[in-house]
Amino acid sequence: MSADRPNEDFVPVKHKPDSDVDQFRQDGEAAVAWVADYLERVRELPVQARVKPGEIRGTLPPSPPDRGEPFAAVLTDLDELLLPGITHWNHPRFFGYFANSGSEPGILAELLIAALNVNAMVWTTSPAATELEELALDWLRQLIGLPEGLHGHIEDTASTATIVALAAARDLRPGGAVLTSEQANFSVAKAARLVGLECRSLPVDSEFRLRPDALAAEIEGAAAVVATVGTTSTTSVDPVPEIADLCEQSGAWLHVDAAYAGSAAVCEEFRWALAGADRADSIVVNPHKWLFTPFDCSALWTRRPDALFRAFSADPEYIPERASGVIDLKDYGPALGRRFRALKLWAVLRAYGREGLQDLIREHVRLARLFASWVEADPDWEVVAPYPFSVVCFRWQGEDEANEALLRRVNETGEAFLSHTRLNGRYVLRLAVGNLRTTEADVARAWELLREAAAA
Amino acid sequence: MSADRPNEDFVPVKHKPDSDVDQFRQDGEAAVAWVADYLERVRELPVQARVKPGEIRGTLPPSPPDRGEPFAAVLTDLDELLLPGITHWNHPRFFGYFANSGSEPGILAELLIAALNVNAMVWTTSPAATELEELALDWLRQLIGLPEGLHGHIEDTASTATIVALAAARDLRPGGAVLTSEQANFSVAKAARLVGLECRSLPVDSEFRLRPDALAAEIEGAAAVVATVGTTSTTSVDPVPEIADLCEQSGAWLHVDAAYAGSAAVCEEFRWALAGADRADSIVVNPHKWLFTPFDCSALWTRRPDALFRAFSADPEYIPERASGVIDLKDYGPALGRRFRALKLWAVLRAYGREGLQDLIREHVRLARLFASWVEADPDWEVVAPYPFSVVCFRWQGEDEANEALLRRVNETGEAFLSHTRLNGRYVLRLAVGNLRTTEADVARAWELLREAAAA
Repeated sequence: MSADRPNEDFVPVKHKPDSDVDQFRQDGEAAVAWVADYLERVRELPVQARVKPGEIRGTLPPSPPDRGEPFAAVLTDLDELLLPGITHWNHPRFFGYFANSGSEPGILAELLIAALNVNAMVWTTSPAATELEELALDWLRQLIGLPEGLHGHIEDTASTATIVALAAARDLRPGGAVLTSEQANFSVAKAARLVGLECRSLPVDSEFRLRPDALAAEIEGAAAVVATVGTTSTTSVDPVPEIADLCEQSGAWLHVDAAYAGSAAVCEEFRWALAGADRADSIVVNPHKWLFTPFDCSALWTRRPDALFRAFSADPEYIPERASGVIDLKDYGPALGRRFRALKLWAVLRAYGREGLQDLIREHVRLARLFASWVEADPDWEVVAPYPFSVVCFRWQGEDEANEALLRRVNETGEAFLSHTRLNGRYVLRLAVGNLRTTEADVARAWELLREAAAA
Repeated sequence: MSADRPNEDFVPVKHKPDSDVDQFRQDGEAAVAWVADYLERVRELPVQARVKPGEIRGTLPPSPPDRGEPFAAVLTDLDELLLPGITHWNHPRFFGYFANSGSEPGILAELLIAALNVNAMVWTTSPAATELEELALDWLRQLIGLPEGLHGHIEDTASTATIVALAAARDLRPGGAVLTSEQANFSVAKAARLVGLECRSLPVDSEFRLRPDALAAEIEGAAAVVATVGTTSTTSVDPVPEIADLCEQSGAWLHVDAAYAGSAAVCEEFRWALAGADRADSIVVNPHKWLFTPFDCSALWTRRPDALFRAFSADPEYIPERASGVIDLKDYGPALGRRFRALKLWAVLRAYGREGLQDLIREHVRLARLFASWVEADPDWEVVAPYPFSVVCFRWQGEDEANEALLRRVNETGEAFLSHTRLNGRYVLRLAVGNLRTTEADVARAWELLREAAAA
């Protein structure tokens, strides 16, 4: 049988293998030096990008080059053309959203992951990738005190982990709604929409926690309840034990979104936050949020892997048969292509160890409390929500517009970056600590900038 | 307002910042050296892992360390404990599935991505990340000859890109089915299941292409049709122009899955494969399959971004308002967290340039055709499907079991790795060329191993 006719005019070109590893050694040293320099000088860069829409793209060639260019050109353009358009999430005074760190062991592990370039879709396509994923998730499970016997795997983000949970729940109760608090992350509503379920937002108490009485009134026939341990606005913790009671009575799937705060449970004194999570059907914790692992790495555990398997398994002809005694991770989530993310999580857990992680988390909480104490001591300012972890919600005494202008002014200094939310209809500022290089002086500088901006 | 009561016993621990960048310089040099050595010696390693289930995990500590360890320990264990369990996807004689390469510029770009660790969720959270994503997708669009004016963004895998397309299609026609050929990737059925649509597999012609007459008979009221350009088993190309006619008449969404073969269109002589794709509502091409970009990087274009926006947009309180004149990429797909994947695609496109990519693709096609010519010239073997690109489906004259045993024997040598599929009920071997270091001698060795295994 001959090749397809449309290619009869194909003229083979003699290939010169572009496989000069010596060039990679040079380029790799330059890239490592770039990263090291970046980590040292990022503190001096403006945290927030100061560019107008289209400005960065306007500096770049509109079409790809015909001939290859040296990798050094990428590094040069990264410095000269791209960095002005980067908001530096890895900056010690990045206090927005959930501040996070791509730590050095995680950064280097990404290099290794890309070099190996394996696909952990099924066990046989790289046994070590599947087994290390199981092991790393079990290590993390132990670190945060979840019970034994859970099935764990890695998704890219909590958005996907929640999609996985809700797809499994929907298949068990196709018509049921998804119930969550009005403080839940919007990925819950997005996931429900994707799998075709109605999502209902339930009211919270004065400390922004899902009200069990409101849930009890609505839970009949629900497919799933998503409880949050560390909500995105205030890091409030829903009363998971009471929610678990209700879910057990009604048969609804309980998914616990501990994407941010789950990492805190590495410290004994924060284990309370995961109370009841042992009764969840699924639980997600993002090591890329507060466990020093570069984007993306979202840990999903379930005690009902059979339900995930039913929602996602498929065995096409071109995939090897399942070896006996193993699981194929493609059967537990939407994607067939699965990066070797376990390697970076494992590298980070080893590099810091339990104590190192505890030290960092405790320091971040200490800094957040210190900041809150300054805010509380100033009559022109108020803390507007409890701050159980490393995020403080607060505001200046003025109107919403004044707070909004104040935030803009602080961020425009380039010295610190904070984000905002709305609570009870009011515009609220948020300071989130999470970078491994953030010091007390950094937090103090943020407070100084805020007061200066208020005074202006 | 005070911190949550459960933490009253919290004792702050003085934090010693783990921010020794000099250590990173050392570790980084070691990691680059490891990767360089790996790329040089991977050719000598057994392609397929030779381990039993649980064997790798059994060599690793069951619990995480209490105290941190040096990064050098990760490299040592990677060599000694993990590599025996790795099937080397980056090996020049990895001919399974779709062979692929994590090329050097892409590998180094992953290091940079992890160091910057930005989240490209909205434009303001890192303008350069959004704008480079738009630019890199436009460069790739130009390289493969798609029309101007498409909205492009990056998803992790084609599985997710197809989910995005089908969610948009479902919202336009909630009750309609998804139609695709029986040769489509199983991610289509998985995506349909996830978004709650029925998926119907339609028959193919003798060259494994979707039959337009079968589609015409079923298309009434369908929500979407997924046409494949380069099916997973044989790389057959569905007749997209005829399919587009039918979709336009019926109003069904046309999604073109060109995950593998779309990259071939970088060469003029393979542009035929994308004929009609300019009329698709959405089209996906995976640079991580045949464009030398490390996992994961899946390019999705659409001419109906409004439909994606309706399916995925959401504006929670804690995300900055959309700046005027920009788009926020979180509104076009399921995940809020979005890695700076554009940087690696951009680095690869620049490093190779149009001509470098053409050379590699042409060489891979030449090698596949050469292999096919050897198979065709041997009366004991047959090529069982057209081979328009770099994948050859073939079999030995014996029964299915004999072919299966033969494949096992070849893979067990460790010298080459091939995978299989089934066509017309028969077990079929597949040789896929895609690694940038694969030479004619590598393909010749695979053929030698196959004949030796058949003779055994």
